[in-house]
Amino acid sequence: MKIAIVFGGSSYEHEISIVSAIAMKDVIKSELEYIFLDENREFYHIPTKTIKSKLFSTGEYKKCDKLNIKKGGFSKKAMFGEKNVEFDIVLNLIHGGDGEDGTVASLFEFFDIKYIGPRVGACSVSFNKFLTKGYASSLGIKTIPYKYFTKFDEISVDEFPVIVKPVTLGSSIGVSIVKTKEELSYALDVAFEFDNAVLIETFVPNIKEYNLAGYKIGNEIKYSIIEEPQKADFLDFDKKYLDFARTERVSVANISDELKEKLKKAFATIYNTTFNDAMIRCDFFVIDDEVYLNEINPIPGSMANYLFEDFDASIKELSKSLRLKDKIKISYDYVNKIQAAKGK
Amino acid sequence: MKIAIVFGGSSYEHEISIVSAIAMKDVIKSELEYIFLDENREFYHIPTKTIKSKLFSTGEYKKCDKLNIKKGGFSKKAMFGEKNVEFDIVLNLIHGGDGEDGTVASLFEFFDIKYIGPRVGACSVSFNKFLTKGYASSLGIKTIPYKYFTKFDEISVDEFPVIVKPVTLGSSIGVSIVKTKEELSYALDVAFEFDNAVLIETFVPNIKEYNLAGYKIGNEIKYSIIEEPQKADFLDFDKKYLDFARTERVSVANISDELKEKLKKAFATIYNTTFNDAMIRCDFFVIDDEVYLNEINPIPGSMANYLFEDFDASIKELSKSLRLKDKIKISYDYVNKIQAAKGK
Repeated sequence: MKIAIVFGGSSYEHEISIVSAIAMKDVIKSELEYIFLDENREFYHIPTKTIKSKLFSTGEYKKCDKLNIKKGGFSKKAMFGEKNVEFDIVLNLIHGGDGEDGTVASLFEFFDIKYIGPRVGACSVSFNKFLTKGYASSLGIKTIPYKYFTKFDEISVDEFPVIVKPVTLGSSIGVSIVKTKEELSYALDVAFEFDNAVLIETFVPNIKEYNLAGYKIGNEIKYSIIEEPQKADFLDFDKKYLDFARTERVSVANISDELKEKLKKAFATIYNTTFNDAMIRCDFFVIDDEVYLNEINPIPGSMANYLFEDFDASIKELSKSLRLKDKIKISYDYVNKIQAAKGK
Repeated sequence: MKIAIVFGGSSYEHEISIVSAIAMKDVIKSELEYIFLDENREFYHIPTKTIKSKLFSTGEYKKCDKLNIKKGGFSKKAMFGEKNVEFDIVLNLIHGGDGEDGTVASLFEFFDIKYIGPRVGACSVSFNKFLTKGYASSLGIKTIPYKYFTKFDEISVDEFPVIVKPVTLGSSIGVSIVKTKEELSYALDVAFEFDNAVLIETFVPNIKEYNLAGYKIGNEIKYSIIEEPQKADFLDFDKKYLDFARTERVSVANISDELKEKLKKAFATIYNTTFNDAMIRCDFFVIDDEVYLNEINPIPGSMANYLFEDFDASIKELSKSLRLKDKIKISYDYVNKIQAAKGK
């Protein structure tokens, strides 16, 4: 099994995707190919042996072979014609824009490339926090109370503190905790810098948080362990960043079996058929023993490898279960009918 | 202004996209380029003068120039190197799969091509009927009561008649009206043939239906007229198909100004910021003077041209308002910080 890791992207989380990708070397035993998508949306083939973060910050990656995306995969110019990059499946490891918004998922679908990662609909549901709320609610999963505003709306908040979040973007970018009315307009300016719509959520201090990852084989969800992440009031970009380099296993959250079951049930409900073919991490809150969905990470930092008993085996199992979509058979019945009716 | 119409696609609505595309010749006065996406996802440049539906049903289109999608547009092989297809904007006119599921929207984003059409998130919200329900509900817009089931769920229905619908796909494909318990399992088999999840909706006979199209310029919605479509119990594929060839204006629905305002308000709420840059048609039901969303067509048949006072002017106005997304500036602050900490 040879896995091609696609990372980078035109994304505010470009850097952490690089760190995530490099972390995979320590936790995946299969042979890896590294395919970097730079900010100009050019693909490069990065040698697995010598990959390191400095290669990208210095721009040195531009000396690597440029790749062309095409039916079934990627190719580079060779002495005679072109040469394909050999791999069995792609692991989409582009965090944020391009990776989690459906862009490269669509590219892979369009070019018939098998990949681990969220499909387009799954991306929309998790990348847009307003859609996440609606999706969870349709499935009977609780979320923290919120209001949704666009740039042109009149915005009023009755009770503080609140969290102001741009509806898209991950990793706490553009997110502020607002404690007073006076701080609100600055927080809105920041959020609207990144997006044309925001969520304003009730801020619940000292909330219990639990993370659970998993994937589906057939109709069975394979769960990771449940972690209670260490955190400050809320994670800023710096702290979250370290998460992406994590490769050490964490300890299991010290909670009742009943709560564990509740969290797993919520995970399965959310995973549904929407997240098929992806390995996702759900971040839950628990208030008075009730489970609330905080967010869905359809491409979690370093693939949440540290939550799995045997991450390498899990990635292999998921890889083997992937299928390309069946081709749609195009018929011209209606066009022919019209032709016939016209007597042409 | 030169508009490139992209049509066809790997879609159950491939044929009606062809009919829709050809109809544009009668209603758009700007110069047109026709770019066909065939079932194998190859692009072809079809001469505007000679385009006709037979070209596709016979496979004759394969004699036309093959196109390559690339940064900024499409190119074909020429005597020396390659030649670009010249246009100002693309009109995405691929109905159903590829067009309305976010695939080509992503391609256009990835390759920096300006286009009229729903963005990825807008596609997910309208292509997946379960997400449509959640989206509408989050925005306070009513929809017909429903249940959502996946292939592996135990499915039970208490009251008949109901409509069984695959969650994705448009144009009534895989949709059945089920009047008795006995008919249910056949209808489910049909629906699950197309998708791994279904909606089962209460069937309301003789329901009033109204269609309204529009687009946004700045923060102002530009509405079409409101039509009360002629229909049987529900539109089958054959009847809907004819809609795609429509180029004649229709008459305005005979309803109160108050109801018109309600429909427009619901349209604006749904359009929101989600459907920016698209010309969409919302199909509403009205029960006891209350507006219900039936479905959102983010690429309506023949662009719902027959609903607009001056369709050509509308397309021009929308075209001119389109902007490419701002480039994200990639920094390497965090990678550099780590490098510094490591003393490298």
